[in-house]
Amino acid sequence: MSSEATAKASSETPQPTPPPNAKDVESQNQTPPPGYSVVGIFRRWRHEDISKKGTFGLRGSALLFSLLAFIIMASNRHGDWRDYNRYEEFRYELAIAILSSIYNGFQVWRQYRLISTGKELLSFSDQNLALIDFVGDQIMAYLLISAASSAVPMTNRMREGADNAFTDSLAASISMEFFAFFILGSSAILSGYKLVKSSCI
Amino acid sequence: MSSEATAKASSETPQPTPPPNAKDVESQNQTPPPGYSVVGIFRRWRHEDISKKGTFGLRGSALLFSLLAFIIMASNRHGDWRDYNRYEEFRYELAIAILSSIYNGFQVWRQYRLISTGKELLSFSDQNLALIDFVGDQIMAYLLISAASSAVPMTNRMREGADNAFTDSLAASISMEFFAFFILGSSAILSGYKLVKSSCI
Repeated sequence: MSSEATAKASSETPQPTPPPNAKDVESQNQTPPPGYSVVGIFRRWRHEDISKKGTFGLRGSALLFSLLAFIIMASNRHGDWRDYNRYEEFRYELAIAILSSIYNGFQVWRQYRLISTGKELLSFSDQNLALIDFVGDQIMAYLLISAASSAVPMTNRMREGADNAFTDSLAASISMEFFAFFILGSSAILSGYKLVKSSCI
Repeated sequence: MSSEATAKASSETPQPTPPPNAKDVESQNQTPPPGYSVVGIFRRWRHEDISKKGTFGLRGSALLFSLLAFIIMASNRHGDWRDYNRYEEFRYELAIAILSSIYNGFQVWRQYRLISTGKELLSFSDQNLALIDFVGDQIMAYLLISAASSAVPMTNRMREGADNAFTDSLAASISMEFFAFFILGSSAILSGYKLVKSSCI
């Protein structure tokens, strides 16, 4: 908006190259300068800022919910039948929560490093990175909904008979995993969009 | 390949507009003619044939597997505890199989109509159609994996104790639903690719 306004102003008043306006117009018409100049960094920030911070936020929330699901489920041992370890669906749910925590932790660390230092951790081309992001997000989303869904029927059945700390923790952990699924599903759509965009420009 | 060859031939032999070659070159340089001319139909077939038949085949297979999952589960009533109707996960699995059959049946019918008559059933823009396809495929894929996953633990538990026609049918129906999920997941990726492609050209 502001850059448009300055561009318009500079085209309406044809001054013979005043320093600040000329710099603006120059930075608009040129191909993107490399990342080590201040202008280049600013331009890259303006262009990629929203999408980068968006995925960073999504992955951060997914990490939070996965960790919650993992912790709540792992600490859910109250002896006898009230032990998650005796049911395969809850063990599966825990395994996927751990996997999702590791995946999202890695992605958050990678993107934090990218935002703060501007350096990419993995030495692949942009398109391959987008492909890795998309495939990872999509597979994790499928795994999360699969794990959460598989744990629901047994929990329902238990809650019909008894309603105690064990079943409440189960429900909480499953809910957290569903939240993580919704977030990673959105993230997968965003990554897929970036992937196709990067291949068709 | 063949159109390139004819174009090359016509550029190598500069005859003063012979009727057949001129028609070829004209049909290459023009914008796509509407669908009621023979040349237009042929050109559209050549361009969109593979992707259209690809999605048609995918949706057809998904319809087949959904129908199988639906029929096997719905006929799986052997009295007493061997009745799918007494377990919520199997009722859910059946519901999603029916939903997937309806969705895929509609899509197959729509695409068959499009391929055979060239007319689109829904009066939306191409981009909105691609969006509808993508959203539908993706949601159905998530529902299918959710339903199949939720039915697995109870089936495993039953098969530990007994191994009869009931549990075998359960396993068969769940497998069919997993196949349908894999196919619709691929279809969702294809639809998403088309959606972004259509918006960035």
